Amino acid sequence: MASPPRDLSMSFFVLPLLALLINPATSIRTSIIKLPGSDGSRSSAADTYCESWRLAVETNNAGTWDVIPSLCVDSVAGYLKGDEYGSDYSVIVDYALAFAKTVKISGDGKDVWIFDIDETLLTNIGYYRAHGYGVSRSEPFDSKSFNEWVVQGTAPAFAASLRMYNALKKLGFTIVLLTGRDEDQRNVTETNLRDVGYSGWERLILRGQDDQGKSATNYKSEQRSKLIDQGFKIHGNTGDQWSDLLGFAVADRSFKVPNPMYYIP
Amino acid sequence: MASPPRDLSMSFFVLPLLALLINPATSIRTSIIKLPGSDGSRSSAADTYCESWRLAVETNNAGTWDVIPSLCVDSVAGYLKGDEYGSDYSVIVDYALAFAKTVKISGDGKDVWIFDIDETLLTNIGYYRAHGYGVSRSEPFDSKSFNEWVVQGTAPAFAASLRMYNALKKLGFTIVLLTGRDEDQRNVTETNLRDVGYSGWERLILRGQDDQGKSATNYKSEQRSKLIDQGFKIHGNTGDQWSDLLGFAVADRSFKVPNPMYYIP
Repeated sequence: MASPPRDLSMSFFVLPLLALLINPATSIRTSIIKLPGSDGSRSSAADTYCESWRLAVETNNAGTWDVIPSLCVDSVAGYLKGDEYGSDYSVIVDYALAFAKTVKISGDGKDVWIFDIDETLLTNIGYYRAHGYGVSRSEPFDSKSFNEWVVQGTAPAFAASLRMYNALKKLGFTIVLLTGRDEDQRNVTETNLRDVGYSGWERLILRGQDDQGKSATNYKSEQRSKLIDQGFKIHGNTGDQWSDLLGFAVADRSFKVPNPMYYIP
Repeated sequence: MASPPRDLSMSFFVLPLLALLINPATSIRTSIIKLPGSDGSRSSAADTYCESWRLAVETNNAGTWDVIPSLCVDSVAGYLKGDEYGSDYSVIVDYALAFAKTVKISGDGKDVWIFDIDETLLTNIGYYRAHGYGVSRSEPFDSKSFNEWVVQGTAPAFAASLRMYNALKKLGFTIVLLTGRDEDQRNVTETNLRDVGYSGWERLILRGQDDQGKSATNYKSEQRSKLIDQGFKIHGNTGDQWSDLLGFAVADRSFKVPNPMYYIP
């Protein structure tokens, strides 16, 4: 459907809105100097914009994007902490399971459902929250510190994804895990997954030497293509990134779970 | 990416939520019998669910769906009346125009941007609002009364789509309108579009005799394919339905504008 644009800066969206929000007329009218965030209307306008931004991201209308707009960091943090995120995830799981129940399972073990891992089966929100969501200038995304977090192997599961995973196993699907994590994180990843309740996957596919430098879309499409060559039927696919789902050798149905924190091409 | 599931009933999402919402424990605790909708927490739980439902629809996670869940009719009506809808549309337009500005226009008139019409350039919300959004049992969607509305030719434009349309023309794109309306509505459609400010499209493609009975996805894919055969390059496509955007001969970038009112396969 959508391929990333060649250049897409957020600044031209955010700047006009900021200009509107810090309009000095507001201060003059009330005779109080309003700080950004201290004004209800400011907050409300920002919330409206940030909900629109999040929708644009989730629908892939935004295409390639870099970081959360600074105006929306609080809004995204609130979304991730509140009820909406869990509800959004859970409603998607309901739709995915409704579809899964319509699939005729052949019994030959070839009926596959693919899961991505990070922000799909396991959540790294704790890491991102502690690191300012990779937004602050003093702390942009740092793969070294993120890998230190990964090797701790303490990422929790989502309740909704655990429910989905177990229901799909029960329906007879063969589970394949397809992650952008590197092959040398296989052990810690398996242990982490088992510790939080996942079990019984058929394969865990990680990036090998040959996959370094490939876009996630290409790497994951190639791996799906290999599964199809081996006779597997890919009925469903669940991921938090469009690059988990689009490309070639796509699943019959793809389910995009929310992630307003980062974009992987 | 996603193809419609074979069967997808909403009832199993809504029923557990309703069960939760009309939990008698609430009434016992407060000693007041709460009517659905009169309780703040009920409303809040419904709002959370309905926002999740709307996200599932906009991301195509919902796949084929029939009508707005009855629990969510008020929430959808509120969304369409409030600021969020216009903001959502406008942010998508900003992303679309940011992409459009990166396209090198050849000057041979072959650089195309496609627009759908209903709920993309023109809004029929007035009709749907007056007809209970096609949800009430006494008034399900009625193509006869909808066509009576269409031939009046009074559907307004969206401010955001008019802005987008004019900006794309100015950038040098060739505009093609591709609609599910029938050929015999050509005149009224052209007049309606001109009356509200659209002009200068290269083609208006409507369903002809040969297109009757085709799914929107197939009909629109075939028409895009013909354009490509004629040497046009389809850089962008804007529609409120996934069937405007998916299929074959898809645009380089597709932009899904919001429509929580109905689904066309």
